[in-house]
This record gives sequence, structure tokens and C-alpha cells, in this order.
Amino acid sequence: MPHAGLCFVGHRFGAFAQSTEHLMITIAVDCMGGDFGPPVTLPACESFLASHPDARLVLVGRPDTLQSCPALAAHDRCVWVSASEVVAMDDPVEVALRRKKDSSMRVAIQQVKEGKADAVVSSGNTGALMAIARYVLKTLEGIDRPAIASQLPNQTGGSTTVLDLGANVDCSAQHLLQFAVMGSALVSAISGQRNPSVGLLNVGEEVIKGSEVIKQAGELLRSAAQSGDLNFVGNVEGNDIFKGTADVVVCDGFVGNVALKASEGLASMISGFIRQEFSRNPFRKLAALAAYPVLSAFKRRVDHRRYNGAALLGLRGLVFKSHGSADAFAFSVALARAYDAAHNGLLIQVQAQIKRAAPLMAGPSAATADMGGPDN
Amino acid sequence: MPHAGLCFVGHRFGAFAQSTEHLMITIAVDCMGGDFGPPVTLPACESFLASHPDARLVLVGRPDTLQSCPALAAHDRCVWVSASEVVAMDDPVEVALRRKKDSSMRVAIQQVKEGKADAVVSSGNTGALMAIARYVLKTLEGIDRPAIASQLPNQTGGSTTVLDLGANVDCSAQHLLQFAVMGSALVSAISGQRNPSVGLLNVGEEVIKGSEVIKQAGELLRSAAQSGDLNFVGNVEGNDIFKGTADVVVCDGFVGNVALKASEGLASMISGFIRQEFSRNPFRKLAALAAYPVLSAFKRRVDHRRYNGAALLGLRGLVFKSHGSADAFAFSVALARAYDAAHNGLLIQVQAQIKRAAPLMAGPSAATADMGGPDN
Repeated sequence: MPHAGLCFVGHRFGAFAQSTEHLMITIAVDCMGGDFGPPVTLPACESFLASHPDARLVLVGRPDTLQSCPALAAHDRCVWVSASEVVAMDDPVEVALRRKKDSSMRVAIQQVKEGKADAVVSSGNTGALMAIARYVLKTLEGIDRPAIASQLPNQTGGSTTVLDLGANVDCSAQHLLQFAVMGSALVSAISGQRNPSVGLLNVGEEVIKGSEVIKQAGELLRSAAQSGDLNFVGNVEGNDIFKGTADVVVCDGFVGNVALKASEGLASMISGFIRQEFSRNPFRKLAALAAYPVLSAFKRRVDHRRYNGAALLGLRGLVFKSHGSADAFAFSVALARAYDAAHNGLLIQVQAQIKRAAPLMAGPSAATADMGGPDN
Repeated sequence: MPHAGLCFVGHRFGAFAQSTEHLMITIAVDCMGGDFGPPVTLPACESFLASHPDARLVLVGRPDTLQSCPALAAHDRCVWVSASEVVAMDDPVEVALRRKKDSSMRVAIQQVKEGKADAVVSSGNTGALMAIARYVLKTLEGIDRPAIASQLPNQTGGSTTVLDLGANVDCSAQHLLQFAVMGSALVSAISGQRNPSVGLLNVGEEVIKGSEVIKQAGELLRSAAQSGDLNFVGNVEGNDIFKGTADVVVCDGFVGNVALKASEGLASMISGFIRQEFSRNPFRKLAALAAYPVLSAFKRRVDHRRYNGAALLGLRGLVFKSHGSADAFAFSVALARAYDAAHNGLLIQVQAQIKRAAPLMAGPSAATADMGGPDN
């Protein structure tokens, strides 16, 4: 839940005045992260503040950066916290975690740890973000490993929440159960949906399908359904993500990451084909003009920027990851997603759901390594 | 290589006359398989024969089926072999393998085993096809497990061959090496490309990424590259499948199956969106008319039917799997693919490549189970 009447001191530019406003939401922003850094993050912060009058931002980055955006420097719902280092997109996790202790990413996460922000958003290196968030915030009781969850559009016009998308390349059945519980809480918090349906990603619908880990996870999830802790609807297949068969689709991080990136690759190929075909000759360029309203509507519907902002679930604080290549619009979507999660008390919902499912999650969890997380 | 001057006796309707023609290619067809059976497979056979004057077909199915297509019954490059049973799309592997010994699927595979056909095509139940093919034909020396390989279109305008697409849900590093060798041979045989590039599907490009199995597979593949046995280009990610970064992408069957189906789901969602947007009101319907040539060209480019026909690699005979929901056009594409593979001596190429890579493949192969194959 948001920190009502939050008061804190920015390291460099000052502090929010002791506020009488309740339920203001404060988001810490790693302004230096991503492929583009401040030229993308700062304009996004400006538009986010304009559309969210009850939001405040803690902008974290190099002191000289703010100068590029005087509107934010003067903004009354904005404070600046300086950080002398930046985690590069290709920094190994080890370097980001141990050698860059004053990185904008880490300082931004610390704002959440210290109660100065309700959530943090970064478009930096995923592996580093997960490692630092885990180190600084720690995992929730009952959760062995945080997971990355994101929404993908489906053909019902809604979205499917998929996790894990790459934090954990080797998972046990227990981990998959934990992901299911956290994903279910995320959907409840973000969309207000009670008891969202959960599917287990597999190579077939039948219970005998899949690897040993998947079959065991299926058993755990069926137990959770019987005890009323989860609305588990059974195995789903890759195409069900886009059909919208279940609100939440659970998988290990290797499979989720490949499925997500394969989908991104296919969408990009299809967009390229459409562009090529519409510009092949002057007649086709005319046809593109005629079809412009349709192409715009279509582009809007499949615009991945609208789904930017993955949640790092299972931590003692709200952390959102924007795509590294996000533009200002996409980054502002990630900010809005973090705002919604904080506003709707995602952390409390996740904790409550974990507590309810605790008896199921008490089983032995495999001690497989979660090294070698994915690229951004 | 094709059986030159092949002569054999059809069980029911006769036999091909002793032929003086050389290099005729004979394909055995499971006419009863797939979601639709003969109404799809028989018209596909007709058009395949018309476009392949040096091909012959062995049509396998229930005796009464041929009556539905008198043109094929009278065709001089066609014989009919009767089979009294049909493997249903939802038959468990056990039932298909042990209780339906006179199924059209099994009898069609036996044509290859007995040297009466150069390849077999079925659109039946994948798990059953793999199990029966493996039982009847056996695996090639040096291959622990057959894999399913298919071509997906990429943005270069060419295609990427991906394997395994679902035959093996748990793979060792050795298995992934075997898939790489077989996939490389497949691309050489089908496209005539010497030394196709091979990528290992992973969650990042760096060698430290991925699960333990993937890291070990990366080491084996790098050894194969050093010894000149494979053109291994390193790790690739999900989006590289559609970028066309490598000619062959290797992964375990669980990951491959999910990536393939997720892509199918996304493509289907996008098609649906385009249809919806172009039919939203009369103006948009007019725009659709104007854009018709573009939409047709686009549809052709992403038409998955053009990529129908997955190869079951690693068996002592050529087996091709058509999608269960294939229409006559798609099924004829699968027939053509089997024809190309036989014509270009795929089996000999795979065997030669395995022989060359034998020293690398001599490592211990994990004894993990390959139960629970995918749905069709």
C-alpha cells in the first residue's frame, strides 16, 4: 500500500514538504538505465507526472543529467537523488552488484528499501536489476526466487500475464507453484480481477504431457485448485498465451524468455513485411493511404510499447523493469504500471496470497542454480 | 537416395510395373491421418502427382476410401495399400503402437522399411507417428533420439530450420549436439546449402547464459566448430528464429514446441486483428478492397501452409509430419518436402554427417526419459 503522507529528503535537490495529501504514490526512477538513458526517461517522467496528479517521482541519476530537463528540476512533485555510477547494459551481474555500489539502479532500489518510494522502475540490464533488487530488498517469506512477469496482448482484447520471463532458467515444481501464486496476485492487483485463472505452460493439455518437473508442478497446482487457493485451469500450450485461455500462464524462465522473444521477433518480421508490401510501388503506396486508419488501429493494437513494464515479483518491494529499448511513451507506460501496482497494494496482495498458499508451498524446493539469467 | 527403378506390389489395387525409369521418387501417404483425412489428403495427392512427373505415391488407407477419388484410383503413378485401422488424433501412443497394428500410419511407415517407398508422409498424431516410426524403422547409429525439425519463415525472405519441436521434452547436451548435426544435414539436403550455420537457442548470447545443459551443449558445439564438423555460430535468442541469424536453431523439444505454438498463436491473433480492423465499417471495407493486392501478398508471405511438413530426423528412413489441421494445399507442400528430401538424398547426408561428427558424439548421453511428447 502507498506510504500516505510520505516525507523524505532528496540527496541533492531537496525534499518533498511534509504532506497532508494522503495516498500520494511515489515512484523511484533509474533515469540512467536502458539503451538511451535520460533522453528517454526524463520526457517519460514529465508526461507521467502530467497524467498522474497524485504521483511523485524520485529521479535517480548523475547530477548533471537533470540539467537536460529544467521542467522536471522545477517540478514540485519531483526530487532528485544523485548517483555517481551507471550499470551498463552489458555489465556482468557481478560487476553491477559488487563494484558499482553507487549506481543509479541501486540507489533507486534503495529508495524503496528505505520507504522513500512505493515502487522503482528501471530499464537497465535485467540480470543486474534482479540481482541488486534481490540483494537490497530480499525475497518475501515463502518465496525462493523472484520471477519476472509481463502482460502480453491476447485475441480477446485483454492481456495474458506470463511468468517467469527469464529470471530463473532452471525451476523446480515448487518454484512454478510460487510463480502461479504471485502471478495470480499480480493480476488481481493490477486488473482488480478476483481469482484469475492460471494455466501451466506445457507441450499438450493432458496431465501426462511434459517433463517430470512440469508433471509435478501440475500436481501441486491441482492441489492448490482443490484447496481453493488458485483458480488452476490445467495445462495450456504456447498458442494459448495469445488466445487468452488463462489470465496467468506459468513457465520456467528459459521457456518464457524464448517464447517472449520469439513472439517479439515474429511481430517485428510481420510489421516489416507489411511495410515492405505497402511500399513496393506507387499503387501500393496509394493503397497504404486508403488503409491508413486501419493500419493505425492495427498498429495500436499490437503496439508492444503499450505492454511495457514487467514486474519483478517475490521481493519485499515493488520493482518494475522497462524494456531496454523503450522510447519515452513505452517508459511512461512502465511508470504507470508501477503506479497502478503501488496504488492497488500489490505487495500486500502477494503477501496475503502466499500466506494462504503456504501449506502447499512448504514442500521441498529443488536447490538448482539460477545462474545465467537472460539478456535485457 | 531414391530407389531407382523401384518395383513393388500394392496389397489391393496392384503394383507399379517393372520400371525402366530411373530416379523415380516414391512417397507413401497415410491417407487417413489428420483432422480431415481423405477429403484433404487425396486432393493433395492428385495435385502433387500433377506437379511432380517423376513421383509415385503409395496411398495407404481403408479400402473404401479410394472410391472417393476415382482420378487417383485410375492413376498410373499410384498404388493403393489397404489398412484396416486408423490412429485417432487423440489416441495415446500406447494404443497406436500396440493395439492398432494395421493402422494406415503404421502400414505407410512399413512401406519405407520394406524399401517400397523413399519417404512417408502423415498428418496424424505426432506422438504416435514418432513412436511407430521409431519402432518400425529404428534410429540411425549414433542417434539416441529422433527429433522433429521444421522450417519457419524469417525476415530475410528465407527460412530457419528449428529442432527439436516437441519429440523430446528433456534433453542432454549430447542430444542437442545430435540435433545440430541432423539439422545441418537437413538444410544441406533440402536447400543445397553447404555448411549451414547453426545456433543454440538460449536466453542470451553470452556463453555463461542458460541452464547447465545448455552451457554443456555450447561447449560441445564449439568443439564441433573447431574440428570443422559444424558451422556453429554461438547462442541465439528467440527473436533470432525470425531474424534468420542462423540457418539452423537447436533447442530441446519443450522449448521448441512452446516457441512454435506461441508464434502460431501470435500470427493467428494478428491475422484476426487485421480482419477485424478491415471490416469494422463500410469505409474500412472499401480500404480493404484498395489494399487487396497488398493483403494477398502479405498473406502469402506469412502463410504457414507454405512451411508445412516437419522432418522426423534420426530414423533409418525418411518420415515427414504434416500439421494435423492441414488443408489440401498444405498437405501437398508436405508431400513436396518429402519428395525433395528423398530426391536430394537426405538420409545419406544425415548418415555421412553423423559419421563425421562421431568422435564428438561419443560422450555419455544422459538417460533422461523422453515420455510425454507433444500434442499434434
